[in-house]
Amino acid sequence: MYASAEELVFDIAELASFELFSPVVDETVWFFRDLLGMIETARSGDSVYLRGFEDPYGHSLKITHRDTPGMGHAGWRANSVPALHRRVEAIERSGLGRGWVEGEVGMGPAYEFTTPDGAVQRIGFEVAYYEPPAEQRSVVLNRVQRRPLNGVPIRRLDHLNLLSRDVTENRRFFAEQLGFKLSEHILFSDDTEGGAWLRAMTRSHDIALVKDGVGGGGRLHHVAFLYGNTQHLMDACDVLTDNGLEIEAAMASHAISQAQFVYVLEPGGNRIELVGSAGYQVTDPSWQPVVWAQDAIDDAIIWYGSELPAEFDTYGTPVVGPTNYRTPNRYAATEAGMILGGRASV
Amino acid sequence: MYASAEELVFDIAELASFELFSPVVDETVWFFRDLLGMIETARSGDSVYLRGFEDPYGHSLKITHRDTPGMGHAGWRANSVPALHRRVEAIERSGLGRGWVEGEVGMGPAYEFTTPDGAVQRIGFEVAYYEPPAEQRSVVLNRVQRRPLNGVPIRRLDHLNLLSRDVTENRRFFAEQLGFKLSEHILFSDDTEGGAWLRAMTRSHDIALVKDGVGGGGRLHHVAFLYGNTQHLMDACDVLTDNGLEIEAAMASHAISQAQFVYVLEPGGNRIELVGSAGYQVTDPSWQPVVWAQDAIDDAIIWYGSELPAEFDTYGTPVVGPTNYRTPNRYAATEAGMILGGRASV
Amino acid sequence: MYASAEELVFDIAELASFELFSPVVDETVWFFRDLLGMIETARSGDSVYLRGFEDPYGHSLKITHRDTPGMGHAGWRANSVPALHRRVEAIERSGLGRGWVEGEVGMGPAYEFTTPDGAVQRIGFEVAYYEPPAEQRSVVLNRVQRRPLNGVPIRRLDHLNLLSRDVTENRRFFAEQLGFKLSEHILFSDDTEGGAWLRAMTRSHDIALVKDGVGGGGRLHHVAFLYGNTQHLMDACDVLTDNGLEIEAAMASHAISQAQFVYVLEPGGNRIELVGSAGYQVTDPSWQPVVWAQDAIDDAIIWYGSELPAEFDTYGTPVVGPTNYRTPNRYAATEAGMILGGRASV
Amino acid sequence: MYASAEELVFDIAELASFELFSPVVDETVWFFRDLLGMIETARSGDSVYLRGFEDPYGHSLKITHRDTPGMGHAGWRANSVPALHRRVEAIERSGLGRGWVEGEVGMGPAYEFTTPDGAVQRIGFEVAYYEPPAEQRSVVLNRVQRRPLNGVPIRRLDHLNLLSRDVTENRRFFAEQLGFKLSEHILFSDDTEGGAWLRAMTRSHDIALVKDGVGGGGRLHHVAFLYGNTQHLMDACDVLTDNGLEIEAAMASHAISQAQFVYVLEPGGNRIELVGSAGYQVTDPSWQPVVWAQDAIDDAIIWYGSELPAEFDTYGTPVVGPTNYRTPNRYAATEAGMILGGRASV
Repeated sequence: MYASAEELVFDIAELASFELFSPVVDETVWFFRDLLGMIETARSGDSVYLRGFEDPYGHSLKITHRDTPGMGHAGWRANSVPALHRRVEAIERSGLGRGWVEGEVGMGPAYEFTTPDGAVQRIGFEVAYYEPPAEQRSVVLNRVQRRPLNGVPIRRLDHLNLLSRDVTENRRFFAEQLGFKLSEHILFSDDTEGGAWLRAMTRSHDIALVKDGVGGGGRLHHVAFLYGNTQHLMDACDVLTDNGLEIEAAMASHAISQAQFVYVLEPGGNRIELVGSAGYQVTDPSWQPVVWAQDAIDDAIIWYGSELPAEFDTYGTPVVGPTNYRTPNRYAATEAGMILGGRASV
Repeated sequence: MYASAEELVFDIAELASFELFSPVVDETVWFFRDLLGMIETARSGDSVYLRGFEDPYGHSLKITHRDTPGMGHAGWRANSVPALHRRVEAIERSGLGRGWVEGEVGMGPAYEFTTPDGAVQRIGFEVAYYEPPAEQRSVVLNRVQRRPLNGVPIRRLDHLNLLSRDVTENRRFFAEQLGFKLSEHILFSDDTEGGAWLRAMTRSHDIALVKDGVGGGGRLHHVAFLYGNTQHLMDACDVLTDNGLEIEAAMASHAISQAQFVYVLEPGGNRIELVGSAGYQVTDPSWQPVVWAQDAIDDAIIWYGSELPAEFDTYGTPVVGPTNYRTPNRYAATEAGMILGGRASV
Repeated sequence: MYASAEELVFDIAELASFELFSPVVDETVWFFRDLLGMIETARSGDSVYLRGFEDPYGHSLKITHRDTPGMGHAGWRANSVPALHRRVEAIERSGLGRGWVEGEVGMGPAYEFTTPDGAVQRIGFEVAYYEPPAEQRSVVLNRVQRRPLNGVPIRRLDHLNLLSRDVTENRRFFAEQLGFKLSEHILFSDDTEGGAWLRAMTRSHDIALVKDGVGGGGRLHHVAFLYGNTQHLMDACDVLTDNGLEIEAAMASHAISQAQFVYVLEPGGNRIELVGSAGYQVTDPSWQPVVWAQDAIDDAIIWYGSELPAEFDTYGTPVVGPTNYRTPNRYAATEAGMILGGRASV
Repeated sequence: MYASAEELVFDIAELASFELFSPVVDETVWFFRDLLGMIETARSGDSVYLRGFEDPYGHSLKITHRDTPGMGHAGWRANSVPALHRRVEAIERSGLGRGWVEGEVGMGPAYEFTTPDGAVQRIGFEVAYYEPPAEQRSVVLNRVQRRPLNGVPIRRLDHLNLLSRDVTENRRFFAEQLGFKLSEHILFSDDTEGGAWLRAMTRSHDIALVKDGVGGGGRLHHVAFLYGNTQHLMDACDVLTDNGLEIEAAMASHAISQAQFVYVLEPGGNRIELVGSAGYQVTDPSWQPVVWAQDAIDDAIIWYGSELPAEFDTYGTPVVGPTNYRTPNRYAATEAGMILGGRASV
């Protein structure tokens, strides 16, 4: 029998939006809109806003021009206004708060802060909902709009993964200041944490933190979008391969989270994960975090299937050090009907 | 922009167990164990206890002998001990409480109560976890045990659906006393509710309440188990058909919840739903309940595909009135290799 | 042990093209191109030519304007020039030959004939292959071109089904003059054939003949296109439903052929089948035709799942008698975002 | 326009049976029967006979005890008795014939011969069909028997792949003596063939021949069994992983044939391929063999996804040289619930 007097915190509802930096905004937009079926909803300054067809808000992805790829910020939504204020107070006590930000397209006031590694995060509650034009309304009334007719459309934003200088320090920050719950983690043989997967509500993880072996942390390992089934991963691979994108790993299955995945570099050089089946849900309130020892890590990352390339552990954006990955030029690829040229990332 | 000062209640974690009455316990166990791959974990008195391979507790399904099929009780798990006590206080104030129950196999103390229609429910927190024998442990450490090698194994208990005399009264009870949130509902043209789908945490629904057109309510429309993908629904249909079971509807898709489904009568006469993809998650804390008007109900229940039989709306257990459904005798079916005989339900 | 000295005839390779009559060519083209991802390759006179992305030839579908929907002709390809001449000789002996036709876009000379019911057929060997533009070439070299980025793209033409005045007479014609082999058939209790499924090479069927209960035969029951998996059927249903198309039956599984299917009316009123998994292959040269007795017909047509509407047995094009089916107007549907209007077929 | 007076040869219908040598017959039977759901139909001498649930004959797999793993023989079925005699005459002219073999369980007389590399093959026509016991008959009358309730049942035998000393010589033998048609091949930069995929009828390949980089050819690279969809590959991976089997590569997709695959070593050390979707069919009689140049080989073998281990190119049975692969001991694995022990293959 298991009993605990401890209350679980459910103050954060979800990852609601994500800002990605790209040196080639047009190509990055082409990737998400033409290949992955996202809908462009706004442009403002150096930024383009998009959403998946089941993302409820005005945007879930903001692509902003910067010379170097990476993450702008991750935008979390609180479960209520009081929950927002509880989290802001906790963040302020941690000393990592930066203050309220206003004026983001389709977003109400949000409180900006950083992780211990310096990755920028925001938390808010008010948000503008997407109103589809009449001809895009679906007979499936719980669906924001119709399934798009372009590309292999992803459904919605899923989670993010940050390369971390010190996984434990960052994991504690998310747990203690934001109320995230630990689902699984990797313990190296020296007892340091190699990675941690945390959930806000019940999906297996909304954020993952993995050891940054080559950089100082705070870098983007990947941001993930959800399909919900295996076949769409395969359809996406068809399209991505023929359009010259670098597929880093595909169609394997993580033991951690039990999700099937594709990792691909978008033209700006950021790693994007496409998720098939979403993996397990944690509704058990007494869930004991799963521990993966060092010698089980391979099983943890790839349940079955082939090896991941060595750069899976080190490549992130901004890129640190040399890389073998290439981010092919869209137009070269399109003109030649093949991967003819390319551009080494960074 | 949407703003609310209201806190959401997350006191109930999940439907953790379900008791089903069957006049033919052996055949009902055969259905769940041999065909649907559940694992038998205990027998006690007139009851057999089973679980799916990703159900974390000692059992998720208790099958008890009664002359008439139907529901014994639904067992909810609270998110914490304080959450349990908050809900018990609310139930007691409603006058529908029955008091604490102890001694259930693998369960700590639970508080028993009824819905306004008299359907028995329990809520508790303490529960015994399933400990697989060594040879059933999985390398996938977040998985309770290996995928079974028998039948087409369901993963876990999913939700229940109760035929209700007055949907609104029952819906309010679950919302106000237990903190469930309304995801979708059907409004008839006379403004009465035809059905309501409510969630405890974030899955589209943990309980559904639909209008009992022929009985006095409190009857079981169905209890559902999760596969998580379409192919397993088809595998199950192969097996169920060849074993003479009555498949009421299969391989269509609900607009409500977006889940794909199979409805089948187990040998005891209870309607069982098998769920493919789990449908959407509600992580949006400001979710506005979806309203299906009377003329959209067909779309709501069947997004695409063929018609449901008329008895889908009226058949429940205990059975009220005449039925065309048959619950074939296992042994007759097996001996003949075909559906030879059968037994009208009730 | 089974032994036979009889040689099997493999003179017909495949159904290579199909001409469909539509009173609303623009809308029919919209259906196949924008929703089902076919590629328009030519226009000539009143006709538009299209192909699926794995169809090897210049077109597999020719849509021609006529006031009444129905089939123009089915175009078979022989396995060699000698095979072509063997079949032409046999057809000529049958008295159903019409003579050689030249000048069809992308086709060499073809011999035209009719079935005993008068349905027009052609058989040829020479055909022009599709040459994709450079930017549409795939790295998958056995694939004619890339998977399109529009709609839910079907792979290729699959089979056709003709309503027949006398199934046996038509079945014998295809067997004796063309060398088709019988895979399955339905025998009514009066020993007449209710339907016959025949194969040219090894797929379960390339043509089906089913009893025309209301008309004089020679009408189109449906023409079918292949997806190859279940998920694409569901994706197509999403798109078809939201675009106001009439889905007659979806996501069920035939016992005959073991194929999963969707039946939908295209805007011109013709019934189109979308095939998921292709069903079984017959490589056993001694295959004994499967016989479905009258009382097993329901199982034969729907292995599991819901009922088919009664018009499944009688509706064909040209339409004979009254129908409840509607072929919604594309523009009405699009403007309103819903099924607002429509037009009764014929 | 393409025209040819040449007749295609369709004398061989299919790969009907395959004999596998195993040093641990009991464990090999456990693998195919308990994990992959094959049905044991006979035992005779040192051999056990099995079939998949859609294999029509008495057996498709014969497992025979030998100290060294490898292939016993591949058993082809002719399309007719005259076709059989045509092939036997051609083989005899080639000088590779060995003569007629009688007395194989459930098989009529077969003519035995070898490939130029010495791999043993047989060709026959007479064969005994499997008659299921009454309780295993399916309502799906075209299905030999019900889907089994044990393991993740494969449907049927699919194809074989032989490591070849000289691919061209062996490819010509299959084309000229047996009438196989070339679907795809790999040409190294020195113009020698690296691999060839040939079809008997219309499936993309029934036999593949790949260059044996370390041995003298005639060794088994793999024998393949068909699932028909992706999900069953994933189900199989779950089961295989938890039972300690060595999965060499999983869930990727070949560009050659477009099939999805899992490669796994059975306990006897032989490589087994499990096939998801069956890949394309060649019904085009003028199909021009696809040529993969040396620099496209990686795309050819893995369309998308991770790398194959280097041993994929060299490991075969009998094993030549050192190997890193392990064939875990079933009982060790089962007792410990994990991969505890093992036995290096050979």
